[in-house]
Amino acid sequence: MHSEQRQRTARRLAQDGIEQAIFASPLSVRWLTGIDVPGGSAENPALLWYDQDKFTLLVENGFAAQAAIFGAQPGCAVRDYLGYTIQQPIDRPAHLARLLSAVADGGLEDTDVIGIETQSLSMHLWWSVRQLLNGSYDLTPIDGWLEPLRAVKTAEEIATIREGFRLTDIGHVAGRQAVQADAREIDVWTAVQSAVEQAAGQRMTLGNDCIVGHRPTNNIGGPPGDIAIRPDDSFILDLSVIHQGYWTDSCATYYAGEPTAQQVTLHNFVEEALAYAISLVKPGAVAKEIDQKVRDFMDRGGYKVYPHHTGHGIGLTGHEAPRIVPYNDEVLEAGMVIMLEPGIYFPGVTSVRLEDGLLVTETGAEILSGHDKSLP
Amino acid sequence: MHSEQRQRTARRLAQDGIEQAIFASPLSVRWLTGIDVPGGSAENPALLWYDQDKFTLLVENGFAAQAAIFGAQPGCAVRDYLGYTIQQPIDRPAHLARLLSAVADGGLEDTDVIGIETQSLSMHLWWSVRQLLNGSYDLTPIDGWLEPLRAVKTAEEIATIREGFRLTDIGHVAGRQAVQADAREIDVWTAVQSAVEQAAGQRMTLGNDCIVGHRPTNNIGGPPGDIAIRPDDSFILDLSVIHQGYWTDSCATYYAGEPTAQQVTLHNFVEEALAYAISLVKPGAVAKEIDQKVRDFMDRGGYKVYPHHTGHGIGLTGHEAPRIVPYNDEVLEAGMVIMLEPGIYFPGVTSVRLEDGLLVTETGAEILSGHDKSLP
Repeated sequence: MHSEQRQRTARRLAQDGIEQAIFASPLSVRWLTGIDVPGGSAENPALLWYDQDKFTLLVENGFAAQAAIFGAQPGCAVRDYLGYTIQQPIDRPAHLARLLSAVADGGLEDTDVIGIETQSLSMHLWWSVRQLLNGSYDLTPIDGWLEPLRAVKTAEEIATIREGFRLTDIGHVAGRQAVQADAREIDVWTAVQSAVEQAAGQRMTLGNDCIVGHRPTNNIGGPPGDIAIRPDDSFILDLSVIHQGYWTDSCATYYAGEPTAQQVTLHNFVEEALAYAISLVKPGAVAKEIDQKVRDFMDRGGYKVYPHHTGHGIGLTGHEAPRIVPYNDEVLEAGMVIMLEPGIYFPGVTSVRLEDGLLVTETGAEILSGHDKSLP
Repeated sequence: MHSEQRQRTARRLAQDGIEQAIFASPLSVRWLTGIDVPGGSAENPALLWYDQDKFTLLVENGFAAQAAIFGAQPGCAVRDYLGYTIQQPIDRPAHLARLLSAVADGGLEDTDVIGIETQSLSMHLWWSVRQLLNGSYDLTPIDGWLEPLRAVKTAEEIATIREGFRLTDIGHVAGRQAVQADAREIDVWTAVQSAVEQAAGQRMTLGNDCIVGHRPTNNIGGPPGDIAIRPDDSFILDLSVIHQGYWTDSCATYYAGEPTAQQVTLHNFVEEALAYAISLVKPGAVAKEIDQKVRDFMDRGGYKVYPHHTGHGIGLTGHEAPRIVPYNDEVLEAGMVIMLEPGIYFPGVTSVRLEDGLLVTETGAEILSGHDKSLP
């Protein structure tokens, strides 16, 4: 489980001579362990201690049973600290600091180089380690180091993401049906969320935009509100489902009734723009070049170019490498999972956006999202 | 808006001679500002800088408009840093570090005592401040200092919590109806969540337990699963709604059909236990004494005493001061909002828990929760 992630990481750390490291970002902990444990917050932190190819997960005792599957793997261990109790004040940070200090002790010697995710580790936890170090320690911030390593997904991750898209598609079926005149944005949302959770058999975290096209100001995106759908409305449902820590993404535009002539024109054009964007996806393609070509396509059509990214990677977050944006020199590789999402927005009138999720393959792209983006 | 909170805090800091402080806990930022801005995570942090009675909120530019209402108040200011952009890599921690350094510069002099929430501030952000300090600075960790100040709610907070309970009650009406043989735990949950969100007109974060009584192991609590309700089942719905940052809590036990004789006996007894617990609430009552008396009541009834707290405060978290637990010497004061929740659990058979939310008043307690906890 996620052994390839740990191998990539060990190689990366070795390149810079780092023998010990503390991973404090919940995303890093999730990616390196493959399990969902609460982590990264002051309230409920999980940490991963790395010492010469061995990974030790520090986790609250209430989640130790869940974490055992990680500890059972080669080169992995789990240590737990006291969480909920009725016998004394709950003090997770203090217990974790003591545990971290105990686990790190012995691994740290004067000549070691320690790597730390400094943007996620609290200064409180840092102090519990610093006291173990000789004053002349060599510390390397490793913030963001795993992000490029996360961009190419493993087969295990792709399987998880596929299941996420299956659930996302179910949400869209419910959303498409729920978009009707006089229903509100929030009513569409509850229909979508209920459908996804009932299919999954459990609570799920869902994201993104659920809005009518006639919004006078921001009709690009936003959470659903107490706003009624008009008979001639368009409706943007931009839906992410987080399945086992991995995000999907997707966008369709639905209509309360028969789309207006303008809406039909816009919808067809955005469909063409998305198809064009997808045709550009293959290993070796440069992110910023895809971005520019799709913007040019919109411009040639006579439309104001959308103010957002053309697309982005997904994985443990909803927006990650490779970003399909104007400055980005990153090159697509097989195994990356990216989204593409051209849109056209007329505030106060209507808006259309369509988005697909793509697995970059050796020869091009496989569409992972299966939602119905067609006109009614 | 939350000016009393800032006054309490300024007084508390002055007691220890602290002139500058950094509040990094999202709960502290929320409590001191009265507004919901994302905060406290490595991904999306908000901070509050305190300098001699003036509070400056450091927030991502995407939330600056929301934050303006705070900045418009006496002694308050807002400064923002760059968040989402398509023109360069997104790097919130770096931009925030620069802003914090700029804001703190000038406020820090050799003789100052600075207070920091060290469990929430990242070591990365700490470094951006440390460089401004003379090596002999005097730093006081202020973790947890606001928790006791938060226990007595202001009138503004109580009004917010009342609205939260109104929504919670709506969730219970839907839940009570949804508990039927062959429906699943997750189906009850989606009915509850949809009802609350439709009433609120927006997405809401809900919490807690939604489980059948016949669960073979943990029939005390847990998230809803793909588990069908049996004809003779009991069902625990323990529901929190987070409204404008403030939690409610509540628990009822529902039944799929006519309750069994055992269930009727248990339900009546737990109703008595809860009424007894409520009768103990008044200013001056000691938390651990209430806890012990309710445990004794269960014991006298011949039941195994529940393994969890007898109750707890609520506010910006679901469990906070004053905890009604065996060790806690805290004394109740008017204005505190607490929950009481006795329960009886027979794993594999049935379980019953009932919970009310109470405002401690000058003479006793007012029940804030209005859900129907009666037998069918």
